[in-house]
Amino acid sequence: MLSQAITEELENIVGNGNVQTSQASRLVYSYDATPNFQALPDAVVAPRSTEEVAEVVKVCNREKIPIVPRGSGTNLCAGTVPTEGGIVLLFKHMNKILEIDEDNLTVTVQPGVITLDMIEAVEKKQLFYPPDPSSMKISTIGGNINENSGGLRGLKYGVTRDYVLALEAVLPNGDIIRTGGKLAKDVAGYDLTRLLVGAEGTLGVITEATLKLVPMPETKQTMLALFSDMEAAARSVSSIIANRIIPVTLEFLDQPTLKAVEDFAEIGLPTDAEAVLLIEQDGAKEVVERDIQRIAEICLNEGALSAEVASSKEEALELTAARRAALSALARLRPTTILEDATVPRSEVANMVRAINEIAKEYNVTICTFGHAGDGNLHPTCLTDVRDEEEMHRVEEAFAAIFAKALELGGTITGEHGVGMMKAPYLEWKLGEEGIALMRAIKQAIDPNHIMNPAKLFAKETRKRVVVSQ
Amino acid sequence: MLSQAITEELENIVGNGNVQTSQASRLVYSYDATPNFQALPDAVVAPRSTEEVAEVVKVCNREKIPIVPRGSGTNLCAGTVPTEGGIVLLFKHMNKILEIDEDNLTVTVQPGVITLDMIEAVEKKQLFYPPDPSSMKISTIGGNINENSGGLRGLKYGVTRDYVLALEAVLPNGDIIRTGGKLAKDVAGYDLTRLLVGAEGTLGVITEATLKLVPMPETKQTMLALFSDMEAAARSVSSIIANRIIPVTLEFLDQPTLKAVEDFAEIGLPTDAEAVLLIEQDGAKEVVERDIQRIAEICLNEGALSAEVASSKEEALELTAARRAALSALARLRPTTILEDATVPRSEVANMVRAINEIAKEYNVTICTFGHAGDGNLHPTCLTDVRDEEEMHRVEEAFAAIFAKALELGGTITGEHGVGMMKAPYLEWKLGEEGIALMRAIKQAIDPNHIMNPAKLFAKETRKRVVVSQ
Repeated sequence: MLSQAITEELENIVGNGNVQTSQASRLVYSYDATPNFQALPDAVVAPRSTEEVAEVVKVCNREKIPIVPRGSGTNLCAGTVPTEGGIVLLFKHMNKILEIDEDNLTVTVQPGVITLDMIEAVEKKQLFYPPDPSSMKISTIGGNINENSGGLRGLKYGVTRDYVLALEAVLPNGDIIRTGGKLAKDVAGYDLTRLLVGAEGTLGVITEATLKLVPMPETKQTMLALFSDMEAAARSVSSIIANRIIPVTLEFLDQPTLKAVEDFAEIGLPTDAEAVLLIEQDGAKEVVERDIQRIAEICLNEGALSAEVASSKEEALELTAARRAALSALARLRPTTILEDATVPRSEVANMVRAINEIAKEYNVTICTFGHAGDGNLHPTCLTDVRDEEEMHRVEEAFAAIFAKALELGGTITGEHGVGMMKAPYLEWKLGEEGIALMRAIKQAIDPNHIMNPAKLFAKETRKRVVVSQ
Repeated sequence: MLSQAITEELENIVGNGNVQTSQASRLVYSYDATPNFQALPDAVVAPRSTEEVAEVVKVCNREKIPIVPRGSGTNLCAGTVPTEGGIVLLFKHMNKILEIDEDNLTVTVQPGVITLDMIEAVEKKQLFYPPDPSSMKISTIGGNINENSGGLRGLKYGVTRDYVLALEAVLPNGDIIRTGGKLAKDVAGYDLTRLLVGAEGTLGVITEATLKLVPMPETKQTMLALFSDMEAAARSVSSIIANRIIPVTLEFLDQPTLKAVEDFAEIGLPTDAEAVLLIEQDGAKEVVERDIQRIAEICLNEGALSAEVASSKEEALELTAARRAALSALARLRPTTILEDATVPRSEVANMVRAINEIAKEYNVTICTFGHAGDGNLHPTCLTDVRDEEEMHRVEEAFAAIFAKALELGGTITGEHGVGMMKAPYLEWKLGEEGIALMRAIKQAIDPNHIMNPAKLFAKETRKRVVVSQ
């Protein structure tokens, strides 16, 4: 717990109502969207300005009090669970869209802005912010930046990192820095902007961001291709790219996911298909029509049972909404849903899905798989029950085997969810001892007191590497 | 000079012929493309593999010998001048294209590959690597990555940083790390890839890179718009973007540059126009035709004297070749050419060009301006003579005023050339004391002996800030 003196010092900075220490409010911020992680913070602090953030950080640095910056807590890596106590930093007062600059195609926001609110605000001006994490209705831009969020449109448009032009941030020593600018080109020094993006709040507190926008695509079409086997779906993905078409969305759902989604959404999805690709293309009308037609042909050539273009905007929206509901749909089936994001090069998607199914069988656990096939970013999702210790142990072993397999195929342990607490024990598998040592050196140099989101990214102990059976 | 023992130790690592210490070979690598900087290295070392690089780095780290990694030395920021002595590291043996992966749309290269060779190799497979620094016929990919090179296509496609998916690098302690992968999404830890990109060789030696490719655009069109005043050209740039068109190239040339280019290239450019925009669009045929027609209308609406589309591929190539020859053309006019790259938000291009002209008048120096108007990346180019000390002093003062003005307009001191020795004294103007302190902390953590390209990025002394007269 914070001492009375520190609590008062923080209250003097952020104002009386903005430091909460009650059991109830601490409980609210003791967990995030990640199952099976919980820890109480000592206080919940909601600053009103960058200057207040800097003052709060200075106090915490002096007193070695952990700081956990938190948006809406939608992350899936236990990235905002205050496992070391300290304060949770909320951005509910720093939630303004500061500027939409139509000349330079940028939007400048405070970290607490809800992603979808910003997307809708820029779309009113016919501008487009592509990163679309599944949580975007609730997630904040600050959270997206700290986690370098991905989404369904990553294949064509990239991820959050690719849209951050400038940041204002408070460093652990209380310094306020400004990086980048409304500039397509800027090589003045180290890329501090991208060092902060995806650092999961371990290097500083982001207090403002300028994001790149692009012109709103003229039109969009959506189609659904059904397959009687997963291999044909994977071949279609490869063949689309080999034909030099980059769709905006190229989503894969396996049969169990499909069934759960249909049970949930009831929009008449054919639940007997073994695999489904949900494909979207956007851009100029002529190009979209040509691409979608060509994609349908490719899918049929590769053995699709059918490849149907949505006949109306409503039908298209229904399809994408159904895909976005995949996690919610699966979450209804068992008490606990663990959504992972092992990611592989696109060419290895079929191998990875096959391996996931074999691993699920080997460890006798239920894993449904869906995800962004176009960028190799799969979401093997385990339906389980945290109360069953024995099963949870098998789940953990199965995921360790999945991570090892992803790495073996040239992939990574996390494509878009982040490392947090959840995957910290596996990070060394990806980066090697040398990579972890480099990260530690950077962390130590910037945050010598380890106040910024401690216990995230850096594991106390690396997990023993699983040998994947072939 | 290196001791006999060290020279032999290095020879044992890289082989006999690959350590050069003769006066002649040291002289060859004593300068780069930047005027007015020269210093002899102690030796020139050409390793044959990553392992040899690591061994060389270990020796240098032990002995505190500076290492200057060097591609073709085409940089314009004195980024590869061995001002602190030590060894120049050449990549002439590490110059292979290792793989073009058509499934994952990547190319994997060693650092010594010539940029244009790689571009031509991937274009044979109908794939496209967009970054096109003006030096690409000579520059190496390793150099491009270290400098985060830009080019003419940055507006639509971004810069080198946006295409680096994975790196292998040797850290100052001799550790070999591998970052990223053939992955569109990867959030496993800090973005070490982008920390190394643009670090100008101050954090480690890049020994291999995997780069992202995109499908080759179907077609391209080129047009030239002539203006009787610069304001109309700048208004056209803004208006094109405001109409939600992002051309691949949107280049600006002022009248003196235009005249020099025509004198050099003799292709019949109209040298009486006050300003010229060279505009290209690529993509699907229908879209390109529509965009180019719309752009021509916009330019005429904004007061262009003419807006003509190149009638043939040959004419288009002639126009872009003429633009690419701008520096060579200007370089013929006076003994010394200093090419800068002050960069501003796109909306400030007219203000910046006007300010450059006023500053040139104030300091009585000759500055021609051309550059990438679409991304605000201007190249004010001073025609001068390094032998005239008094004039060189005025040139320096003028550039200081230009940098100050760029920053005042929300810009940066360098859009694509890098900081090197040349702009190190100005870097604090952009990043503030706090930003420099952060960069120093990172540098110190990774390279405590300061062996990697010392005296670059970090100035011994920050220049006094110029107050720009309004």
